[in-house]
Amino acid sequence: MATRSARHGSPAAVRAAARGGGILTSTAPLAPGYAQANLVVLPRTLAYDFLVFAQRNPRPCPVLEALDCGDPVPRGLAPDADVRTDLPAYRVYRRGKLEGEVSDILSLWREDAVAFLIGCSFTFEAALSDVGVPLRHVELGCSVPMYKTSLELRAAGPFHGRMVVSMRPIPVGLVSRAARVSARYPAMHGAPIHVGAPEEIGIENLARPDYGDPVPVRPDELPVFWACGVTPQAVAVTSRPEWMICHSPGKMFVTDIPHRQFDVLGGAE
Amino acid sequence: MATRSARHGSPAAVRAAARGGGILTSTAPLAPGYAQANLVVLPRTLAYDFLVFAQRNPRPCPVLEALDCGDPVPRGLAPDADVRTDLPAYRVYRRGKLEGEVSDILSLWREDAVAFLIGCSFTFEAALSDVGVPLRHVELGCSVPMYKTSLELRAAGPFHGRMVVSMRPIPVGLVSRAARVSARYPAMHGAPIHVGAPEEIGIENLARPDYGDPVPVRPDELPVFWACGVTPQAVAVTSRPEWMICHSPGKMFVTDIPHRQFDVLGGAE
Repeated sequence: MATRSARHGSPAAVRAAARGGGILTSTAPLAPGYAQANLVVLPRTLAYDFLVFAQRNPRPCPVLEALDCGDPVPRGLAPDADVRTDLPAYRVYRRGKLEGEVSDILSLWREDAVAFLIGCSFTFEAALSDVGVPLRHVELGCSVPMYKTSLELRAAGPFHGRMVVSMRPIPVGLVSRAARVSARYPAMHGAPIHVGAPEEIGIENLARPDYGDPVPVRPDELPVFWACGVTPQAVAVTSRPEWMICHSPGKMFVTDIPHRQFDVLGGAE
Repeated sequence: MATRSARHGSPAAVRAAARGGGILTSTAPLAPGYAQANLVVLPRTLAYDFLVFAQRNPRPCPVLEALDCGDPVPRGLAPDADVRTDLPAYRVYRRGKLEGEVSDILSLWREDAVAFLIGCSFTFEAALSDVGVPLRHVELGCSVPMYKTSLELRAAGPFHGRMVVSMRPIPVGLVSRAARVSARYPAMHGAPIHVGAPEEIGIENLARPDYGDPVPVRPDELPVFWACGVTPQAVAVTSRPEWMICHSPGKMFVTDIPHRQFDVLGGAE
């Protein structure tokens, strides 16, 4: 089965499995050790404003690669890949409305399409796991819970909205370590943006995430919140761009770049 | 004298002095504790490709703020400033040729002008100084030496060229510390891109920098190289954009943001 062979496979093997329709669940456990990315595709007329929006909001929208106009090949992150086919599922938005999910975007691709790949939390999660910080959603085999917040983003052109965050329950004795370790990956959302007190960032009910699955927070834990790469999808709804395609949450683009290269203290120059 | 009062003044006082023509030397010692920035101004038709170029080459071109088209106010870094007047001197390039230096760009400003502010080494220099790493060019009261290298940048649209680096001689026993401390500031060029062996990155003669002043490297020191925000000016020459304005090297834009906010381990969320 494609999914099973992809589990310990190379990034290229995982992308091939996704291309063949063989990955039906989250890409989180696949190609361990390699960074994954969120996808945003927009028409060229909106690409500049989106890139400025991302630059102004680097915590939720850290751009790992801006592809050339009309070019589906991410030459920096995976030069033999194609973002039109190599993710398990795509979400198509028109004027802010989610039209549906598709398994490739070959027929939707346009000469004026511009693709952006955006940092993903799986990289700092691997680092947290390496230093003994448990990840509840991984233990439970579900997706991380994600929430819309009251944190206003800085607008650019038509793009505006509020930050989406992911939440991980962290034992109180490990919160400091979690903050310090994730901070080393600013291109992958970096340090937590908030610890505890969900109401202070506009989250009313932790049991009802806006995306992903709910996970319990135990009495000896604090909910810790990180900026989330699903933010552009919430922004797509509020900003109503003519046309926008994103990955399906949790079903990411797998890059050829090892996690460690994004560690500012130990990675690539 | 404007320069003297600016030396220990606030960022706003330094910008006012620059506006009044009162700053004739480097801004490096002015408004200590606050980040400074490189300036690039381009017509809107070139702004997207430049922003993609910067995204593809974040070491030399870390964008701190992309201003709105036609807007001279850096609303994120200094909301009461004006990039047309608040730097001591500007360099005007046309089709890759340096036309000259001017003290403001009010008469050159256009409705379709887009300004970018780019990270500056003064922030990591303050951090190096704080942990006891000596800075030769500061001791000598001159500008840091900067060199064109053989390191090819990743192109975007018409923008292409090679990296410019700054060089600081570091005592061998402090090279590790200098690398670790500067790495905490990826928005300010981050860790060194090269240590020792200048010929390996295409630098033939350390005594002849392409920008700034030469400084001696002593026998117990290694030359340590960081990506430099003057890179866009070298790129302006090779890429020949219709029109481009930059700061005069060493005469930077002073922001309202303290250095420490750019420390990924201890700064802003």
